[in-house]
Amino acid sequence: MTKQDFRIVGKSVKRADVIEKVTGEGKYTGDYHLPGLLHGKIKRAEIAHARITRIDVSKALAYPGVKAVLTHHDVPKVLHYGSPHPRSASCTKDQYILEDKVRFWGEGVAAVAAVSEEIADEALDLIEVDYEPLPAVYDIDAAQAPGAPQIHEVGPGGNLVIPPVHIERGDVEKGFAEADLILEGEFEGGRPVPTYMEPNVCVADWDGSNKLTFWTSTQTSFMVRGALAEVLGLPLNKVRVLVDHMGGGFGAKQDLFQHEFLCALLARKCRRPVKMEFTRRETFIAGRSRHPFRMWLKQGFRKDGTLVARDMKVIYESGAYGSHSPGVTNVGTASATSLYRCENVRLDGRAVYTNTPIAGAYRGYGVVQTYFAIDIQMDEAAEKLGIDPAEMRLRNAVREGDIAPSGHPIVGRGLEACISHGIEAFGWQAKRGADRGVAGRPSVRRGWGIGCEMHGSSAYPGIKEQGNATVKMNEDGSVTLLTGAAGLGTGAHTALAQIVAEELGVTFESVHVVHGDTDVVPWDIGAFASHTTYLVGSAARMAAAELRERVLARGAEKLQEKVENLEMVDGIITARDKPGTSLTVHEAMGPSRGIPAEHLIASGSYMPTKSYSFAAHFVEVEVDTETGIIECRTVVPVHDVGKVIHPIAAQGQIEGGIQQGIGHTLTENYVIDRTNGRSLNAGLVDYKMPLSMDMPDIRTIILEAAPDPGGPWGAKGVGEDPIIAIGPAIANAVYDAIGVRFHHYPITPEDVLNGLRARKKELQDAGI
Amino acid sequence: MTKQDFRIVGKSVKRADVIEKVTGEGKYTGDYHLPGLLHGKIKRAEIAHARITRIDVSKALAYPGVKAVLTHHDVPKVLHYGSPHPRSASCTKDQYILEDKVRFWGEGVAAVAAVSEEIADEALDLIEVDYEPLPAVYDIDAAQAPGAPQIHEVGPGGNLVIPPVHIERGDVEKGFAEADLILEGEFEGGRPVPTYMEPNVCVADWDGSNKLTFWTSTQTSFMVRGALAEVLGLPLNKVRVLVDHMGGGFGAKQDLFQHEFLCALLARKCRRPVKMEFTRRETFIAGRSRHPFRMWLKQGFRKDGTLVARDMKVIYESGAYGSHSPGVTNVGTASATSLYRCENVRLDGRAVYTNTPIAGAYRGYGVVQTYFAIDIQMDEAAEKLGIDPAEMRLRNAVREGDIAPSGHPIVGRGLEACISHGIEAFGWQAKRGADRGVAGRPSVRRGWGIGCEMHGSSAYPGIKEQGNATVKMNEDGSVTLLTGAAGLGTGAHTALAQIVAEELGVTFESVHVVHGDTDVVPWDIGAFASHTTYLVGSAARMAAAELRERVLARGAEKLQEKVENLEMVDGIITARDKPGTSLTVHEAMGPSRGIPAEHLIASGSYMPTKSYSFAAHFVEVEVDTETGIIECRTVVPVHDVGKVIHPIAAQGQIEGGIQQGIGHTLTENYVIDRTNGRSLNAGLVDYKMPLSMDMPDIRTIILEAAPDPGGPWGAKGVGEDPIIAIGPAIANAVYDAIGVRFHHYPITPEDVLNGLRARKKELQDAGI
Repeated sequence: MTKQDFRIVGKSVKRADVIEKVTGEGKYTGDYHLPGLLHGKIKRAEIAHARITRIDVSKALAYPGVKAVLTHHDVPKVLHYGSPHPRSASCTKDQYILEDKVRFWGEGVAAVAAVSEEIADEALDLIEVDYEPLPAVYDIDAAQAPGAPQIHEVGPGGNLVIPPVHIERGDVEKGFAEADLILEGEFEGGRPVPTYMEPNVCVADWDGSNKLTFWTSTQTSFMVRGALAEVLGLPLNKVRVLVDHMGGGFGAKQDLFQHEFLCALLARKCRRPVKMEFTRRETFIAGRSRHPFRMWLKQGFRKDGTLVARDMKVIYESGAYGSHSPGVTNVGTASATSLYRCENVRLDGRAVYTNTPIAGAYRGYGVVQTYFAIDIQMDEAAEKLGIDPAEMRLRNAVREGDIAPSGHPIVGRGLEACISHGIEAFGWQAKRGADRGVAGRPSVRRGWGIGCEMHGSSAYPGIKEQGNATVKMNEDGSVTLLTGAAGLGTGAHTALAQIVAEELGVTFESVHVVHGDTDVVPWDIGAFASHTTYLVGSAARMAAAELRERVLARGAEKLQEKVENLEMVDGIITARDKPGTSLTVHEAMGPSRGIPAEHLIASGSYMPTKSYSFAAHFVEVEVDTETGIIECRTVVPVHDVGKVIHPIAAQGQIEGGIQQGIGHTLTENYVIDRTNGRSLNAGLVDYKMPLSMDMPDIRTIILEAAPDPGGPWGAKGVGEDPIIAIGPAIANAVYDAIGVRFHHYPITPEDVLNGLRARKKELQDAGI
Repeated sequence: MTKQDFRIVGKSVKRADVIEKVTGEGKYTGDYHLPGLLHGKIKRAEIAHARITRIDVSKALAYPGVKAVLTHHDVPKVLHYGSPHPRSASCTKDQYILEDKVRFWGEGVAAVAAVSEEIADEALDLIEVDYEPLPAVYDIDAAQAPGAPQIHEVGPGGNLVIPPVHIERGDVEKGFAEADLILEGEFEGGRPVPTYMEPNVCVADWDGSNKLTFWTSTQTSFMVRGALAEVLGLPLNKVRVLVDHMGGGFGAKQDLFQHEFLCALLARKCRRPVKMEFTRRETFIAGRSRHPFRMWLKQGFRKDGTLVARDMKVIYESGAYGSHSPGVTNVGTASATSLYRCENVRLDGRAVYTNTPIAGAYRGYGVVQTYFAIDIQMDEAAEKLGIDPAEMRLRNAVREGDIAPSGHPIVGRGLEACISHGIEAFGWQAKRGADRGVAGRPSVRRGWGIGCEMHGSSAYPGIKEQGNATVKMNEDGSVTLLTGAAGLGTGAHTALAQIVAEELGVTFESVHVVHGDTDVVPWDIGAFASHTTYLVGSAARMAAAELRERVLARGAEKLQEKVENLEMVDGIITARDKPGTSLTVHEAMGPSRGIPAEHLIASGSYMPTKSYSFAAHFVEVEVDTETGIIECRTVVPVHDVGKVIHPIAAQGQIEGGIQQGIGHTLTENYVIDRTNGRSLNAGLVDYKMPLSMDMPDIRTIILEAAPDPGGPWGAKGVGEDPIIAIGPAIANAVYDAIGVRFHHYPITPEDVLNGLRARKKELQDAGI
């Protein structure tokens, strides 16, 4: 953290994968075509809750080109999911690969492998299934009603996924007693889906020694390895999971999916490779969404704005299976201990099963929901107390020494820095004083809002996170980094190569990254919790530092200098006080009496504490009071990342997060018919993501305000942060524009028009 | 070496690759079919020495389906070969990928990539080449004649590949002066070819980042990586060489081949993957043979059989390029310093270019030739001195403290042990006293002979050999061994897994071997010099020992015992004095305060001294004096391997070596027309290998007589040894049967009949 002159870190070097991605030559899982490849498809139930009384696959099996059909009769009776990490409490174990029961509309009930996708699809229609319908619940109220049908036999009962999470600090009643202002409200959120460009896809191939090679688009290749090995009854070294490029994951691809198990089983049955690829529709139906939620929030404030008590109840809708609900509930609930300092908190978090598609991990992981509510109520309090909303946040922002949601102390004053910088850069004061009208467009009102957030790197509950990296120098001085860290498309491998090059003292171009092969790279927990650069970056830096010493020892021998007197920059080893005394790292790799060149391999392993990144988002919206359309015009996102490794990549993360955040706040919502559980908009025609023309002017500011001692040169995560603050910032700006408070997302044009009507009536009733 | 109870080492465990090899599911390089794959073919010259004056590829390029054609105008002007190991003097650097000159009949002059093999073949005929013939030399006499045409501009001149190797010890003239018997003779050998089952094949694929992935059937993947990187101007981390299963190599596949460079270049030009696969015919024409040789040998003996002087001149025929001639000449010449002890030696070794196909590395590497001569002359001396041939060898055998060809002292008395055991097991005395006739087959004569040999593991000249291995334990206690050692089909990976399992204390089945991927396994020098088990085995054992300590430390924590008090056997950790206090290695991998389970990786690196293995082969032959056919009936091969790791695999090596040795001694000879350089029998119809029905009764005896402190538990190599002693043993047995001495191989039926006629005339002339 004390290094002064960075040569590679902090620069937007050209990503090594950029050309192959632009030319289309980069290999994604779907690009693997093996000889004899079969195509697998899943038959999906058209009923939300039922028992299968008969399933007849004989016609499908007889169909020309069909090679195998699997039903619940043919698969191991092993409860899977959950425990993707063997020591994790983040997931539940409540799902069979196939079962004689259906718990949501679209759940897979059989799988076919055939010589083409078309034939597999046609064969699905030939599978006959008889169902005995079961009473179903389609929302959290119905699920929690007395006498409600129970969706699972496992779990604590009452359709709870896990026992309620309860967190209490200080004395909430005492806090409320000291409050000058008490606010109470209910908040809700929809079901946004991480619409990654690359639908889920996998290819399974068994070799003659009964070893499974498995290509899959996953963030967590070692977890997939573990789950496949467990379900298939194999030792870990008989399952090889490979990932090359990925077209996004956003958290959802850290789950274990039904199709992955079925693909492996079909390939084993056919003794031929099998590919299974989701349609876009299936990414909705069988993928993972963010948890819909309902939250009750009561907070007390002193006159000066100080938050003195917080009482909260949040209910996450898990859908038909638990997936990441335990982690989401824990992280989301715990997040409400912080952001704004509060000595007296009482938090209750629950996850509830319903007969709807599965909610899972998605960027922002439970926190998007709670901070949406908290940051809207913070705005309401500011207004009531007559305090500027930005000033209100500055007064309450967590800071150095406060306790983070993970239980660790906060490092530095990152949140205050973000707010202060944003006030300045956005021109907050001037804007808030400006006219809400827009010249020439009488129906349009402008508004300005702020939202804040903090999010942990490596802050997963119940997991001992660990980063590993191996760095080796080849005989010609070129360097290979072996890492299990996944490359979702975020540029993580570029950042890791930068860290290795910087620490080692070679050029960025000389470092090549090998990744995504569980047989050969060191174990990795997977890409989530915004931790790759922080966690694996630290391990890579450790490995590079060790390797550098060994290379310098060789240089010292050749230059007849002391190691302490040498430095290595851009692949040149030089004696510090003798500029002419130097040699290239390639020359240093020549014959030596010391370490043989061929064995210059070093490994680093790092178990972090939790670190927190911070952000404040300042937005300008325009609301058309005739159409109800909200347009987000400008965003100034200010992020504290501790130390930026690749500015353009960090900026890309921030812009992408804002796009997704605008989506779930304004338009994105995967809708389930609450009368029968059917999907109503499983596809990109009816599910509305923001397009490029919907994007605001984004003026990103990246701060290195509060470096974390655990990250490489202080670096912290940035992956999840940008999706969190944008939501409440927009809702607050909309209120600023039209005076209507929304406590839910998405805020649709219909909501706006209804809200305006209600407000008009309210004003009329009040005689204003 | 002091271990008493082996659980896995020394047992013939079931090879992990056996099922996939038997079912045909095992993947060989030829099994890789990539989407868009093109097929490459090479146009070969039909002239032995010429300059290309014109080469027109326009018709070939216009042929439908042809994607690229390369001639000498299109390839990097880099001299390749040689230096497969960057610090090796074993190979010459005298060949361009393509040149405007042809030096042997069958040399490649152009290459085509097309959508099918057929089209590529057809396109070859459309390439027009005009040659200006050059005077050529087709044998070592013509090549060395004054004024002979010079084949290369590089090298010392006189068609020598390298300056003559000269070794002198003691005082040869003084030795001869003390001798009671001086023998002098000339010896010759043909051109056997290692007819591996899998013809040379490679697949090249470039990715969008300009990285080459290269599957090839090679013994030396890192050398291929180095050569490709050098020729293509890439850093080493931009070339990934992969080998899965191999169908044999026998040394020849440690060379770098013209087709490998051309395949990579064609793929780069087409931006599509390209496969190049030799026909069987091409494995002769463009593969590598053993060096044909001529040798003059003069030795002096005392009356008691003691060898007192040896004067030798050996000339190896290199063919059109140098390939491994420097190594073969050095190793072969140096081998004549030993086997039988002699204080006074003078040795001269040369390699000579001719306009014939290329000789290269082949099991026995120069030593097959020299020991053939030495062991026949030893027999002649025994007869002249009236000493039993086996006794004669016992008196002269090298032993502990003598200096080996490598310059290192011999360990133990392995050769004497082999001879003594063989005398006993073969019933040597009784047989030699028996009648040479065979009841009921009057034309058949029986005979018994002996041959001896020694051969070094890791005894390559000029190379600093090094073995590396990485062993990691997975979360479930299963183990992955990463090694660069090639699996030619010999069972090397099985032996390495045994060594790891034994040292670590887990079951054999729990160890999985990952190999053959230069990106991910530790550097390896390649599979040659009989050194894989010896060299990489030692490194693997070191790595396993380190890993065991880490695993035991975890066990100690959990069992609350001291590490010193624990042992691990078959994956169970037990306290030595408390039989009930135990846990499985899987349990030990559970959460720990110590080393994280996910990072239990250990590496071993080993730079050996040279070790020598020994053998004596006892054979019985039957010679039909009417047809001239020699049948090898029985072989008792006695081998000292120090410590046997996998008895059946070792036995398989010995039987295979004997089969190949019988081949070159009796039938195998790739014949070049000495008037124009054309191949006369490039194929398995006219080139006669011994079939299973030609195989003798082989009664292998494996001794652990002289363990080498450098090998795992004393193990030494066994790969090359069995091909060496069988040749002179057969020649000596033939003499014993019919009284005709042969100083050459192969000894054909025609030779036998001519020999019998000559001997008859000789006896008649002598009036006997």
